[in-house]
Amino acid sequence: MTHQLNSSDANFERDFRRLVNARRESESDVAIQVRDILREVKARGDEAIIEYSQRFDGHALSEDSDWVITAERCREAYDALEPDLREALELAASRIRAYHAAQLPENRDYTDDAGVRQGATWRAVDAAGLYVPGGRAAYPSSLLMNAIPARVAGVERLVVVTPTPKGQSNPIVLAAAHIAGVDEIWRVGGAQAVAALAYGTDRIKPVDVITGPGNAYVAEAKRQLYGVVGIDMVAGPSEILVIADKDNEPEWIAADLLSQAEHDPTSQSILITDDAPFAALVSDAIELQLATLDTQKTAKASWKEHGAIIVVGSLSEAPALANKLASEHVELAVADPEALMADIRHAGSIFLGRMTPEAIGDYVAGPNHVLPTGRRARFASGLSVLDFMKRTSFIELGEQGMAAIGPAAARLAHAEGLPAHAKSVEVRLK
Amino acid sequence: MTHQLNSSDANFERDFRRLVNARRESESDVAIQVRDILREVKARGDEAIIEYSQRFDGHALSEDSDWVITAERCREAYDALEPDLREALELAASRIRAYHAAQLPENRDYTDDAGVRQGATWRAVDAAGLYVPGGRAAYPSSLLMNAIPARVAGVERLVVVTPTPKGQSNPIVLAAAHIAGVDEIWRVGGAQAVAALAYGTDRIKPVDVITGPGNAYVAEAKRQLYGVVGIDMVAGPSEILVIADKDNEPEWIAADLLSQAEHDPTSQSILITDDAPFAALVSDAIELQLATLDTQKTAKASWKEHGAIIVVGSLSEAPALANKLASEHVELAVADPEALMADIRHAGSIFLGRMTPEAIGDYVAGPNHVLPTGRRARFASGLSVLDFMKRTSFIELGEQGMAAIGPAAARLAHAEGLPAHAKSVEVRLK
Repeated sequence: MTHQLNSSDANFERDFRRLVNARRESESDVAIQVRDILREVKARGDEAIIEYSQRFDGHALSEDSDWVITAERCREAYDALEPDLREALELAASRIRAYHAAQLPENRDYTDDAGVRQGATWRAVDAAGLYVPGGRAAYPSSLLMNAIPARVAGVERLVVVTPTPKGQSNPIVLAAAHIAGVDEIWRVGGAQAVAALAYGTDRIKPVDVITGPGNAYVAEAKRQLYGVVGIDMVAGPSEILVIADKDNEPEWIAADLLSQAEHDPTSQSILITDDAPFAALVSDAIELQLATLDTQKTAKASWKEHGAIIVVGSLSEAPALANKLASEHVELAVADPEALMADIRHAGSIFLGRMTPEAIGDYVAGPNHVLPTGRRARFASGLSVLDFMKRTSFIELGEQGMAAIGPAAARLAHAEGLPAHAKSVEVRLK
Repeated sequence: MTHQLNSSDANFERDFRRLVNARRESESDVAIQVRDILREVKARGDEAIIEYSQRFDGHALSEDSDWVITAERCREAYDALEPDLREALELAASRIRAYHAAQLPENRDYTDDAGVRQGATWRAVDAAGLYVPGGRAAYPSSLLMNAIPARVAGVERLVVVTPTPKGQSNPIVLAAAHIAGVDEIWRVGGAQAVAALAYGTDRIKPVDVITGPGNAYVAEAKRQLYGVVGIDMVAGPSEILVIADKDNEPEWIAADLLSQAEHDPTSQSILITDDAPFAALVSDAIELQLATLDTQKTAKASWKEHGAIIVVGSLSEAPALANKLASEHVELAVADPEALMADIRHAGSIFLGRMTPEAIGDYVAGPNHVLPTGRRARFASGLSVLDFMKRTSFIELGEQGMAAIGPAAARLAHAEGLPAHAKSVEVRLK
C-alpha cells in the first residue's frame, strides 16, 4: 500500500532512506542472451536479423516492404490524421524545435597572452539511430523528442528502427516521423535492431549514436554497445515528486500524481506537503479518480506499490528531501516556487507553480521529456542536441607560443619518462 | 612491419579499410570477474576492499595510514619538487584552469510569445572520483587534466583512488594532487576501488561521477557501473595522425610520430604526406631516433606493428581519410592548416601548423588531453567541465500559457492512451 511518512516521526530518517533506495528497476540477467545476439548480428548481418525477427516478433523479412516503412507511408499517415491531432503534433514539433535550436553550443577560438591559439568546434555526428518500441509503448511524442534534437543538431542521416509484430505499426508514430523528417524506418526491433545500427549490415548502414526507449533487451544492448556507438542515458521507470501546499485543488494534485502512475506499475509518484488534512484530501481524490480511470489497473498498481505521501513540518524541509530523491520530474505547486527551486540541486526537470502540470512537459512545452530516472539526476541530464554532437578541440602555436610554454611541456615529459614527447617539443625550441 | 600505403595503388581502398578496422583493443573477457568484485564490494564494503587489496596489490589495509594519503603528504611532495618542475606543473595547472573556466555553460531562462517560461540550469555534481593508475602509468598531467575540470565545474568533493603496490606512490602525482586541490586520496585500486566509489563503503563515501584511465579491470568496472554513476568515455590505446607536406623537417615529424608510439605497444602513429621522398626521410629519421630512445622498446613495437605511412597524390585527399580514421590527435603540419581543418569532421583534437607538436596538448596548452580514441571521435568529445555537471530544465505556465498550449497537450495525451495525463491538463483549463 501507499507509503505514508511524517517528518516528525521517530523513524522518518530510516523510512525515507528506504524509500530513496527502493529498487524499482529489475536486474533481470539478460546480459548473456544479448551478448549472443550482438555477436551473431556482427558476424552474420542481415541473415541473423531475419532469424531473430522471425523468432521474437513473428515477422518475416523477405520483400523490401517487410524491411522498410517508406516515407510515402508516413506522409499518408500524416495526411489521414484528424486535423486537431495533426495541429497538436505540429505545435509540439515546432515548440520542441525552437527550444532545442536555442540549445546549440557555441564554438570557441581565441589566442591568449602567451600567443597560444586554442578553441573547440562542435559538429553533429553523421548518423543517428532512434529506437521506437512496438505496441503500446510506441509514443509519437517520444519520436518527436528524440528525432527533433538530432535534426536540429544537424545530423544528416536519421534512422528509426521499430518492431512491427503481426505487421502492425502505430500510424500516429509514422505521422510524427513524417513531421520530424526521419530518413529511414526499418521494421526491426529488439537487441538485434540495436546491433544492426551499431555494426551495420548489408541493408542497414551503421550509425554513430543510438537513442530511444526500449525493453530490457534493448537497454542492455545499448549498454553493451556503449563505446562502439554513443548512447543516451540508461532509462528506468518514470517518477514524479509533487511539492504542494494546502492552497491547491486536491483534484489537480491527484491528477498530476496519477499521470506518472499510469505509465507503468513500476512508476513512482510522491507527494510532499506541509498540511496533513490536504494530504488526506489528495489521497481521497486519487481513489475517486482511479475508480473511473481507463488506465486504472496500471495506475493503481503503481500508486499502491510505490506511491508515497510525506507530510513535513515546513516546506523548507522539502528541497533536502527532493535532493536525496533526485527525481525525474519535480512539481512545485506553491505560492513562491522560485524560492524552492533555488535549493533543489538534483532533478531532471522542474515544473513551477500551480498551473504547470508535468504532462505539459511531456508534449508541448519545448524542453525534452527524455530525462534521467532512478536518482540519476545527480549526474545526468535530459536528452539535448549535445547528445547528437561532439566537440573537436584545437591548438596552434607560433614561435612566440612555443617559446612561452614549450620548455614546461618538455620538462613535464621528461618527468613522466616520455623522452619522445620531450624531443618533439625540444626540436622546435632550437 | 610498418604499413606503407599509396593512394594510387589498386588495392588502396582495401588496405586503408583494413587499417581503419584493425582492432588494437583487447577484448579480454574480464566481465565476469569484475561482476563478482562489484557484487562483493556492494555487499561487504570495506571488508571486501581489504581482501582484494591484499590479493591484487599485496597491500595490507589496517591502520588509517594504509588507507589514505594525507593532504600533508601531498603538500610535502609539492614542496620537495625541483623548482623548475614545480613551475612547469603550476603553469600547466593555470593554463588548464583558464581553458576549462571558459568552457562553463550558460543557464537559460526565457518566456516565449505563448507565455511559456522555460529554461535550464547547469549545476556541478556533488562528488567526483578520479582513478589514478599505480606504477608507470601514473602521470601527474593526467591527474591535472581530470581534477581541474571537476574543480572548475564546482564539484565540492574530489576523491582520488590509486593503488600503491608495495606501498609506493608517485611523488609528482601527489604534488599535482596538491595543486589541483584534491580532497581525499584512497590507497585502493582496481575494480574494487571503482566499486567503492560507486556504491560507497563505511570509509569511502560514494561519488556521482568517475573518470580517469585504468587497466582492463578498471575500464570494465566503469562500464558495468555506468548508470549507477556517470563515467567518462571508454578509452583505448592512444593514436596520432600527422598530415605533413614536404616543407617540414623530417626529424620533427619523426619525433611527433614517436611521441605517440612510446605510450604503449598498441598505440598507433600514422603519417599522411603527398611526397614520397619526404616519407622516406621521415621513415629514416624514425629509425635513427629509435636507436637512442629510452622508450625504444615500446615505441619500436608500436611503430612496427601499428604504424603507417600513406602517400597521397594531393593533400586534398587527406581530410576524407582523416574522417574515416577519426583519430584522437591530428597534426596539420602544412602551410595552410586552416583549409584542411575545415574539412576534418572527426578528430579528438587538432594541432595546427608546423610549430604545434601534439605533446604540447598533453601538458600545457590548456585543452584537455583526455580524448576519444578508437574512432570514437565520430560521436564522442574530450573530457570537459560538462562531464562533471548536469542540467535541470524547467517550465512555468500561467493561465495564458496553459490556454495557449494546454489543449494540444491534452489532445496528444488522449491519442497516446494516457487519460490521467490529459486530465492533469484539462482540470486546469476549466
